[in-house]
Amino acid sequence: MGVDITHLSDPADPRLDDYRDLNHSDNRPDLPGGKGLVIAEGPLVIGRLLKSRFPVRSLIGFPAKLESFLSDPAVAELVADIPVYSIDREVLAQVAGFDMHRGLLAAADRVAEMTIAQAIEGAKTVAVLEGVGDHENIGSMFRNAAGMGVDAILFGNGCADPLYRRVVRVSMGHVLRTPFAHFEGKYTTWQRGLAQLVDAGYHLVSLTPDEKAVHLADAMVDEDGAPYEKVALLVGAEGPGLTEHAMRATHVRARIPMAPGTDSLNLATAAAIAFYERDRSLR
Amino acid sequence: MGVDITHLSDPADPRLDDYRDLNHSDNRPDLPGGKGLVIAEGPLVIGRLLKSRFPVRSLIGFPAKLESFLSDPAVAELVADIPVYSIDREVLAQVAGFDMHRGLLAAADRVAEMTIAQAIEGAKTVAVLEGVGDHENIGSMFRNAAGMGVDAILFGNGCADPLYRRVVRVSMGHVLRTPFAHFEGKYTTWQRGLAQLVDAGYHLVSLTPDEKAVHLADAMVDEDGAPYEKVALLVGAEGPGLTEHAMRATHVRARIPMAPGTDSLNLATAAAIAFYERDRSLR
Repeated sequence: MGVDITHLSDPADPRLDDYRDLNHSDNRPDLPGGKGLVIAEGPLVIGRLLKSRFPVRSLIGFPAKLESFLSDPAVAELVADIPVYSIDREVLAQVAGFDMHRGLLAAADRVAEMTIAQAIEGAKTVAVLEGVGDHENIGSMFRNAAGMGVDAILFGNGCADPLYRRVVRVSMGHVLRTPFAHFEGKYTTWQRGLAQLVDAGYHLVSLTPDEKAVHLADAMVDEDGAPYEKVALLVGAEGPGLTEHAMRATHVRARIPMAPGTDSLNLATAAAIAFYERDRSLR
Repeated sequence: MGVDITHLSDPADPRLDDYRDLNHSDNRPDLPGGKGLVIAEGPLVIGRLLKSRFPVRSLIGFPAKLESFLSDPAVAELVADIPVYSIDREVLAQVAGFDMHRGLLAAADRVAEMTIAQAIEGAKTVAVLEGVGDHENIGSMFRNAAGMGVDAILFGNGCADPLYRRVVRVSMGHVLRTPFAHFEGKYTTWQRGLAQLVDAGYHLVSLTPDEKAVHLADAMVDEDGAPYEKVALLVGAEGPGLTEHAMRATHVRARIPMAPGTDSLNLATAAAIAFYERDRSLR
């Protein structure tokens, strides 16, 4: 089955507008919400985008990259109704603003975000982030969450946009699959929203370097050593960590033991260890 | 106590030679071994360099950065016999080849590398890397190793230089403190060197995504559930993983369970989880 491919050679072609100036495409005052489109790069991530809830607007790529990607019949079927444009490397560099050596890109619309209730539907393990402004850390957390059975990621205040291009890439596309939602901070502080998780039966665990906190392993099981049915793992920004306000709303404060005189772990690494320990407690 | 600071304003000054063209400073055919000096950036890492086994050749920085760094009497004492040069931002950018906004650098000589026997002296937990060519992963592993009680890092074939500038930075200087050594691959394959670890009483654990491998937690304890006294954790490159040859030389193959249809963890993340599990087994 063939896919219609149109070759575009004019960098000013309006059909390339979704891919312009990609280093600054996060800010799109012309779109609802003022945020950019979802941009996916490379065959693995685009394959996940095509199967996601985000409606794909177009697919572009170097001729050879497109041919290779579309040679998979399952992929060809998924792109049947999507405009596909081939483009040469120099033209793409002019459009995007830098050399995109991967040479395969797709753009999709954002969709209405889930509510917290929707995101935790059926979930046994969720992560809650507060003040995490680093795109790479958020991307890594989605990748690790998917790998280690975390069902959803919830955002408190001060976190970066999870659909930013770099997050999509670092997450290897998992941000397009794993449910996520933001706590509403409009009328009250977001931490009050944590009560919603308690009501839904979650055991809330704060991750902290505080030496007075319990060992992570002990935080995942009840006094009889049985794992909690539902766990929410709270992770704060590297440096300041979780706010006291957030930690007070949780059941327990847990730490990963660290050697004296060393530095705390990178945020995504600490979270990955917590995901592992949660999965381990369910063995 | 005062530190003598000489201000240098000529980018051609030979006293700045150690800091020239830092993006390509890895290759120094004029030095023994053909490798660059040890370059440390920022107060935290330079502080660790000053207390390390590497002889510091000089310290340079923007005047304000130097003043702040040297205001700590303990630091001032450590730099008492080291030339200190202040330099303006534009001059440093010309010397280094790019804008070094941190504005505080030190250069040190390499020293003779430890042997494997020296590096494992007294060690209870060591990591062994094979084919890890990524500087960031190696740096992260040193950082995580220091934090979670891994005593030494040993290198098989195909690994990047652990004293490369970026490794020093990502490791937060821990590569300057944690013992490391390379297996000799001159007369035989390096994997034969693993017998040295077995002879020294180590339980050798290969980390692999192979589903037939045992759970990581089970690999850290003997059949009675007791932790091994000494453990060596083998980690291979992202993608290919450990060679079969290396895994065959170990006692057990261990995996971190992953959800179906997801990707393997980043190498440094997987290693961090193994370091955590080893530490956890010793509780």
